[in-house]
Amino acid sequence: MKQNKGILVILSGPSGAGKSTVISGLTAKRGDIRFSVSATTREPRPGEKDGREYFFKTREEFFAMIGQDAFLEHAEYVGNCYGTPAAPVEENLAAGYNVLLDIEVQGAAQVMAHRPDAVSIFLCPPSLEELENRLHKRGTDPEERIQARIAAAREEYSQLHNYAYIVVNDDADTAVRELDAIITAELCRGERRLKNIFEGENLL
Amino acid sequence: MKQNKGILVILSGPSGAGKSTVISGLTAKRGDIRFSVSATTREPRPGEKDGREYFFKTREEFFAMIGQDAFLEHAEYVGNCYGTPAAPVEENLAAGYNVLLDIEVQGAAQVMAHRPDAVSIFLCPPSLEELENRLHKRGTDPEERIQARIAAAREEYSQLHNYAYIVVNDDADTAVRELDAIITAELCRGERRLKNIFEGENLL
Repeated sequence: MKQNKGILVILSGPSGAGKSTVISGLTAKRGDIRFSVSATTREPRPGEKDGREYFFKTREEFFAMIGQDAFLEHAEYVGNCYGTPAAPVEENLAAGYNVLLDIEVQGAAQVMAHRPDAVSIFLCPPSLEELENRLHKRGTDPEERIQARIAAAREEYSQLHNYAYIVVNDDADTAVRELDAIITAELCRGERRLKNIFEGENLL
Repeated sequence: MKQNKGILVILSGPSGAGKSTVISGLTAKRGDIRFSVSATTREPRPGEKDGREYFFKTREEFFAMIGQDAFLEHAEYVGNCYGTPAAPVEENLAAGYNVLLDIEVQGAAQVMAHRPDAVSIFLCPPSLEELENRLHKRGTDPEERIQARIAAAREEYSQLHNYAYIVVNDDADTAVRELDAIITAELCRGERRLKNIFEGENLL
């Protein structure tokens, strides 16, 4: 069968919902997915590596990239800038990979507006109480930053209705299985398959 | 988490696409799915059992059920009548099971019109040539019936665009995995999850 063109997958969700963990699980499970590494001005956390979790940029570098129109989307979030470099995304999609974007709701809305074929998924913690517990447990943020994150999560939840899918990360393995299923299912979408047929796949 | 209400899944596809095989595989894999047993006036094939593959009815019995408004949909197909008894479907959905309907395109269109929340999947053989090979190999139909089935398949393909998903049954295990993924993904659909939240699920 002809190679399906890749799917652009948007994953949003509050900090502490477990996005990094499920993304690792998902990319380990599927060989057809590429994680889009974002650029950010926030400080690296212990163990994070430039070019792996993020491209860590100074504000000057970040604004220079905006000037070069080098982002698919960019936004400021809890005092830091985040952006998605466009070139690697387009290259991977053209090569037939599914590309996963980990972006917050403002950036996600920008991508959805430009790419209505993108598949949007919101990853929730089981509750905001559980989110607060996880942020305390992670221990990387002072209390006032944790409270800012909880407030930001409440804000983000007001955009839930814009997402095609909602995955509740109660158990990480289950969440990974659901994300995996969503991508498999989206590759079976009638409009995508029919497009492939009209582009030469011989089913009929 | 609150039990999701079941999803109504429509599976169509030409005779010989392998629907029975993938349905067996899917129901073995998922405990949350119930197969809706259709009523038909066609003769049982060797190994088929009344009440398992179909409820085998005479034409008189079938038309009496139509008179009692006992079908979700019914249609005539290659000389035989097929219908979906409504009562067991509604009971299983209310109990939280996903209900799988194996119905041809006319019946599927009737169900889609009445139940826009139904998830529709078309199961294709890899090609019509392969379909013909499979029908010969099955050896249950005389040549003219096989040609009628191929002609019917061509007709059915004209309705492909009405289906949300298209699964190509090249390899049965892959097809079962894709059907399984579609159901898992549909249970994560934003509109279903938000409905659950508004009905009392406590995420926020």
